[in-house]
Amino acid sequence: MNETLAEVGEFALIDRLTRDVVRGPEVSLGPGDDGAVISVDGALVISVDVLNEGVHFRTDWVAPADDGHRAIAGAVADIEAMGAVPTNVLVALSAPPDLETTWFDRFMAGVLEECETAHVTLVGGDLSGARALAAAVTALGMTRGRPVITRAGAQPGDAVAIKGRVGGAAAGLAVLARGFRSPRALVSAYQRPQVPYGAGAEAARHGATALIDVSDGLVADLGHIAALSSVVIDLDSGTLDIPEPLQAVAHATGKDPLDFVLAGGEDHALVGTFPFGGVPQTWTVLGRVQHLDGRDPQILVDGQEWLGARGWAHFA
Amino acid sequence: MNETLAEVGEFALIDRLTRDVVRGPEVSLGPGDDGAVISVDGALVISVDVLNEGVHFRTDWVAPADDGHRAIAGAVADIEAMGAVPTNVLVALSAPPDLETTWFDRFMAGVLEECETAHVTLVGGDLSGARALAAAVTALGMTRGRPVITRAGAQPGDAVAIKGRVGGAAAGLAVLARGFRSPRALVSAYQRPQVPYGAGAEAARHGATALIDVSDGLVADLGHIAALSSVVIDLDSGTLDIPEPLQAVAHATGKDPLDFVLAGGEDHALVGTFPFGGVPQTWTVLGRVQHLDGRDPQILVDGQEWLGARGWAHFA
Repeated sequence: MNETLAEVGEFALIDRLTRDVVRGPEVSLGPGDDGAVISVDGALVISVDVLNEGVHFRTDWVAPADDGHRAIAGAVADIEAMGAVPTNVLVALSAPPDLETTWFDRFMAGVLEECETAHVTLVGGDLSGARALAAAVTALGMTRGRPVITRAGAQPGDAVAIKGRVGGAAAGLAVLARGFRSPRALVSAYQRPQVPYGAGAEAARHGATALIDVSDGLVADLGHIAALSSVVIDLDSGTLDIPEPLQAVAHATGKDPLDFVLAGGEDHALVGTFPFGGVPQTWTVLGRVQHLDGRDPQILVDGQEWLGARGWAHFA
Repeated sequence: MNETLAEVGEFALIDRLTRDVVRGPEVSLGPGDDGAVISVDGALVISVDVLNEGVHFRTDWVAPADDGHRAIAGAVADIEAMGAVPTNVLVALSAPPDLETTWFDRFMAGVLEECETAHVTLVGGDLSGARALAAAVTALGMTRGRPVITRAGAQPGDAVAIKGRVGGAAAGLAVLARGFRSPRALVSAYQRPQVPYGAGAEAARHGATALIDVSDGLVADLGHIAALSSVVIDLDSGTLDIPEPLQAVAHATGKDPLDFVLAGGEDHALVGTFPFGGVPQTWTVLGRVQHLDGRDPQILVDGQEWLGARGWAHFA
């Protein structure tokens, strides 16, 4: 029999975990008390994101370490999407008592590795019994004196630009759902999304007017910017990067590759709007922001309404 | 058929919810974007706490509004337990898609009512599909220039004192588990714990040396203070308030009433240590802090090792 969470107990697990945790300079008090204490100079950005077993992750498709990576990446991407500098996370893990501690150890190893990649430190969390696995990650960031970038500031004439890939995670998930493990690049895109860390602050330095991370799909997430900024966004499909493996998966699954790229979620690329001429060099321009001119806020593709897949529907 | 979460959808539910949310003066940006933005002057205290269906709450025993109250009370109590002033919460709710929106509406009504009682405002959250209900509450507080009170500062000679009741929630749970709904005071203590809001800041003003909220049981939680402060704590059982209904339930269930008072969790009273003579008037002195004198850190009751119930065991 392998050791379970119930055998080790909450407090020993937390001790085991927090012993080696590195603290950022802003952390006055780390894990182990009723709360963590963090020095904040000015404005704090905060967000919470939950992954639930069977809905947001499948233990049969994703290794525990990858789930740790995914949980942190998705939560920290929300801080990037405000144009802020991510600094800390709290991880609340719910797990069945008979879960093996090896799963826990590997999950937390993934959490800590992704924290290192994202330059954030773990300052607290919770560990509690539940029927199914779930990870709630609270992510914190600082504005460092710059204004935050909301979804509401896009202006007609702005350029729409992206940093990071889209479509790979959805294509990887489609592959896994059919029982395959390749193309490896796409499966990896789902298992370990590559958040363009630092792109949020970069966008802020370049005067981005609106910003979001692609968690529900490019059309769906840009739709939030369009709605809150009261604009129309027109994407040029010719600018969208469709790598060969993604085309192959689209062909094999009888889908339009644009469905993956325009509606695929969970890649956590950053997409935003910039004053014309202000797009950072490492970002790719995808289209333009237009006046409503009597239209509803919406996303067009090559000037037309997009009739393909709509993106991730919560509770569907 | 009643309306379900899946029919209404995540974004409409969040809109419905956040439309009337009151913001504190510290909130620069509330719910609805990738993250909330909060002005912090100095130090931020942060904690996260999860309630899982079937483990921390039972929908057959507790009304949805009460679960909302309990979720906020438990999380905010952790901020009080640092001696800080609670200011904000984020609520991440996971729920099965076929959950009726009436449950959601009532749960959130309870959340918002308890936020009002606690003088905190809701600044964000998450709503996602899951197999079982779960609420992860992130609570924030400010130190307002005072040092935080950890679990590690108790000094030999200090008085141990409590504000709020203990034992009622555990007795109420015992009653509910046997299919009864009274005594009403105890059932209420479980369904809607009365956190002594403001007691954390009061303890800080009075120079408390250590502080914790009673979530796992008085002996278990004071045990954390003893361990981290390297002291022995001796409780005088004669000082413990055992109300008549609690004695009746103990009698009916064949238990020692002290088991409820010393080992019952989830009441979220605040218990701490104060320099002798410094205990605030509204707190009740329960005992004294002693030197280790070669002993392990531990909790004594009337000078003896406590051999009764040990408190809430996670994953048991």
